[in-house]
Amino acid sequence: MSGEFERIAVIRRLAGRHGRGVVLGIGDDAALLASRPGYDTAISSDLLVEGVHFRLDWATPEQIGYKAVAVSLSDMAAMGAEPFAAVIGLAMPTTLGDEFIEAFYRGATALANRHGTTIVGGDLSRSPSTIVIDSVLVGHVPEGGALRRDRARSGQDIYVSGELGTSAFGFARLQSSNEDDLASFASEAAVRTHLLPEPRVEIGRALVARSLATAAIDVSDGLSSDLRHLCEASDVGAILDAATIPAPAGLELALHGGEQYELLFTADPERRSEVAALGAETGVPITRIGRLDYTVVGVWLETEGTRARLEPSGYDHFRSTSPAVDPTSR
Amino acid sequence: MSGEFERIAVIRRLAGRHGRGVVLGIGDDAALLASRPGYDTAISSDLLVEGVHFRLDWATPEQIGYKAVAVSLSDMAAMGAEPFAAVIGLAMPTTLGDEFIEAFYRGATALANRHGTTIVGGDLSRSPSTIVIDSVLVGHVPEGGALRRDRARSGQDIYVSGELGTSAFGFARLQSSNEDDLASFASEAAVRTHLLPEPRVEIGRALVARSLATAAIDVSDGLSSDLRHLCEASDVGAILDAATIPAPAGLELALHGGEQYELLFTADPERRSEVAALGAETGVPITRIGRLDYTVVGVWLETEGTRARLEPSGYDHFRSTSPAVDPTSR
Repeated sequence: MSGEFERIAVIRRLAGRHGRGVVLGIGDDAALLASRPGYDTAISSDLLVEGVHFRLDWATPEQIGYKAVAVSLSDMAAMGAEPFAAVIGLAMPTTLGDEFIEAFYRGATALANRHGTTIVGGDLSRSPSTIVIDSVLVGHVPEGGALRRDRARSGQDIYVSGELGTSAFGFARLQSSNEDDLASFASEAAVRTHLLPEPRVEIGRALVARSLATAAIDVSDGLSSDLRHLCEASDVGAILDAATIPAPAGLELALHGGEQYELLFTADPERRSEVAALGAETGVPITRIGRLDYTVVGVWLETEGTRARLEPSGYDHFRSTSPAVDPTSR
Repeated sequence: MSGEFERIAVIRRLAGRHGRGVVLGIGDDAALLASRPGYDTAISSDLLVEGVHFRLDWATPEQIGYKAVAVSLSDMAAMGAEPFAAVIGLAMPTTLGDEFIEAFYRGATALANRHGTTIVGGDLSRSPSTIVIDSVLVGHVPEGGALRRDRARSGQDIYVSGELGTSAFGFARLQSSNEDDLASFASEAAVRTHLLPEPRVEIGRALVARSLATAAIDVSDGLSSDLRHLCEASDVGAILDAATIPAPAGLELALHGGEQYELLFTADPERRSEVAALGAETGVPITRIGRLDYTVVGVWLETEGTRARLEPSGYDHFRSTSPAVDPTSR
C-alpha cells in the first residue's frame, strides 16, 4: 500500500480543479469556501455503514462512492440548495488497499462534478473491520428561501417526483438468489435505482427559484415515514389518494420502501399548472398524491373512498436486528 | 432503546439554542448557516475510529465526545478560523444504547459551546461492531487571512504553542499496566492531555487578527511529520534547535509523539516581541524552536552544534498493523 501523501495526491487529482465557491481544497488543515452574500449555506451529513447501507458483494467501490454523494445531494435537493462542495470521510480495513480508495473517490467525484460540486476535503482512516463513510455536502440557498419541513399548511397539495418503491424492489431482487429475477429488465432497472439513485437537485433548486413549494423532504426512509416527519414538523395532517401514487412495483413498496431519494413537497393549489410545467421541463414526472388537512392527525390513505390511517414503517437504524442491508435503511 | 425521534430530541436539547451564524439547526434535511460577507468559510473533517483513535476502556463516552470536537477545533485553530458550527456523525453498535449517545453528545457540546460553536446536525447509524465518529467543524476567517501551510518563507522563525510529547507520554501511561505509574501526578496530567487536548483556537484567531503568522499547522501527527508537511507545502527547509523545544516528557516524544494539538507556526523575525506578547496575554507559552532555511532540504535538528536530518516518524493509519490505539494516531 502507498503512503498517506500518495493517497491524498490520488484523491486530489480525482477531485480536480476547484469549482466555483472553493478558495482552497484538499491539502491543508481545512478547506476554504468563499462567502456568497444573500445566500444561506446548507450543510448535511449522511453515514453509510457496510452491512447496514451497502454490501461489497452487491456494489462496486465506484457505486458506493456514487451513492455516498447521491444521498447527501438528495438532502441538498430537499432544501432547494445549489450544492458546490463535499467533504468525504472514509474509514476502511487496510486489506481493501489503494484500489478501493481510488475507485470509491472516482465514483464520488463523477457524481459530484455532474452537480458542479468539488470534493474539498475529508479524512481517511483505517477501521478494524467495517467500512464507514460520512458524506457531508455544502450548498447555497437564497436567504430565507430554503425548503424547510415546517412550512406546510392545511389545504396545500402534496407532490412527489419520479416513482416510489423501485429502489426497495431492486433491493429485494439483490437479496433474491433467483438468477431469473435478476435477469429481467425491470429488475435490472430497479437494482440500478437502488445502487445509483438520482438526486433531484435540479427540481429542488427550481422549486426555490420559483417559490413554488411551501415545504419539502426527500423520501429516504419511505413515504409513510417521511410524510409523517413533514406533517409533524408543520403540525398538520395529510390525506393520500392511493390511486395517484406512482407505484410501478406495487403500493406497499411505494408507501414504505426507503432509499428512493425522490422529492416530497407541498404547494398551494393555485400553483398546479406551474408544478406540471416544472415536471415537463425537467423530464421528471411530478405527481400530485394528496393534500394537507388540519382536521386529521397523522397520515391517512384513501383507497376507493375508504380512509385508513397509514402507520409509518420506515426503518430505524437502532431498532433493526437485521445483519444485512435493509431495504428502507436510510 | 428509544426511537429515532427521541434520540434526535435528546441531541437537540443538548445542542441548545442556535448560536451566532446558525439559521436552522438539527431536525431538517440540512442545517442552514448565515452568510458572513468578507469572511471565508473553513471546513474540516476528522474521523475517530474505535481501536484506532480511542478505546472504551480508557475513555468515557463524554471524553470521546469532547475529543471528537477538540481535534476538529484544532484544525480551525490551525487555519486561524473562528469556529461556529459542528456536524457530528456517529456510527455505533446498538449494544451501547441511548446512554452512550447522550453522554457522547454531552461531552461534544460542552467543548463546542465553550468555543461558541453549535452542533447543527449530523447522522446516527448503527454499526456492526466498531464505533466510528466523523467530526466536521465550520468556522469563519477574514477573506484571504487564513493560516495556510504553503506561505512560509526562508528566514522566518518557527514557533510552537504549549509543550510537546505530553500526550504521547499520557498514552504510554494508559498502555502501561503499572498502577504506580498512573498514580503519579505527572502521569495523571499527561493522560488528561491525551484524552482531553486543548485546541488553540484563541491563539490561531489572534495570529490572524494581528497578521502575525505566515503559515501554520497543528501538531496532530507529531512535530517531525507536521513540520515536514509545512516545509513541503511551502517548498523550504527547516532547522530546529533541540535545546529550545519544550519537551517535559523527553525530546524523543516531543519530536515524534502525536495527538498533542499544539499550534506550529512561522513568523517574520521582526515580530518576535509581538509573538512573546501573545503568549503572555493568552497564558499559553509560545516558544521559538527554529528557523526556515532555503539552503537545506527537509527538517534538520541542531543539538550542541551538530546538525542531523530529522526523519519524520509520524503515524500512517494505513501502514500500522497495531491492533490498539497508537500514540501518534492522528
